Amino acid sequence: MNKKLKLQQLKRDSVASFKEKEKFPIIVILDNIRSLNNIGSFFRTCDAFNVEELILTGICAKPPHREIQKTALGAHQSVAWQYFETTEDAVKYVRTKNYKVYAVEQAETVIQLQNFATNKEKTAVVFGNEVDGVQDAIINLSDGVLEIPQFGTKHSLNVSVCGGAVLWELTKQLIK
Amino acid sequence: MNKKLKLQQLKRDSVASFKEKEKFPIIVILDNIRSLNNIGSFFRTCDAFNVEELILTGICAKPPHREIQKTALGAHQSVAWQYFETTEDAVKYVRTKNYKVYAVEQAETVIQLQNFATNKEKTAVVFGNEVDGVQDAIINLSDGVLEIPQFGTKHSLNVSVCGGAVLWELTKQLIK
Repeated sequence: MNKKLKLQQLKRDSVASFKEKEKFPIIVILDNIRSLNNIGSFFRTCDAFNVEELILTGICAKPPHREIQKTALGAHQSVAWQYFETTEDAVKYVRTKNYKVYAVEQAETVIQLQNFATNKEKTAVVFGNEVDGVQDAIINLSDGVLEIPQFGTKHSLNVSVCGGAVLWELTKQLIK
Repeated sequence: MNKKLKLQQLKRDSVASFKEKEKFPIIVILDNIRSLNNIGSFFRTCDAFNVEELILTGICAKPPHREIQKTALGAHQSVAWQYFETTEDAVKYVRTKNYKVYAVEQAETVIQLQNFATNKEKTAVVFGNEVDGVQDAIINLSDGVLEIPQFGTKHSLNVSVCGGAVLWELTKQLIK
């Protein structure tokens, strides 16, 4: 008889112990994400995958915000985050911390996600606006573009779902 | 100078050609998912990852539904789907097609996702309700439980984001 774990069996960190814990060398940059649900969802994903920092830029709304908190379910308090007016400034900032920068997009020149090896280097990933994607200027500032191969009629995964795929791939490479 | 691809450069299938195309041997079962956004999002993810079939059960709303279609962005027309009153019936159905069944959960006995090898076998994955998760009865009917390791304060990824991580992992194993 196998059973779901109860909340108290999950060995979850408190916010205080999580903040002190060493993070995975992953930074997430959200380039002008419009949806509050998507922003809240990225907070939860960054909490789950022990991400170093979540960076919001441009039109992204910031906590405290009721709608973000509704989706983040408290993760806005555990995940380190900051806001930059421009995504260019966010890229400059992460470079000062020796992170390589990869835009998640479908572009002329890409690395398909199944072929991407972080070699456990510090890796920042940029996710773009729901309609416009990552700005071309940011693509050109990046060290490379990661593409999630898609095989259907839309080629348009929801950006939070992209986050799940890409951040799982990076996390997996760190824990394997 | 690297540039985002324009829509017409994405080589997307038409609905007709997608329907005729051989699918990946993956079936997604949604066990009583409440949110219309999550259901719509799974349609998009199943379209992107060329999934054999999406199965809705219990309280899941079904297309045609305005809110599902708003999130699915048309993928409800390309992805093969059906509805079962109970998740048990969905499990029985996929077994008749020789699929193995894995619940995505945090449970007493699990296979961590980084250790899961499909060996390209037919694989059905069950995602559970936003609050209650996958039913214990379904966990016990399954061939195994897949856990996405989580390292934070919540241990509660959004179910669509879980879908991104798990379906990317399965897809990657099929294309690599």
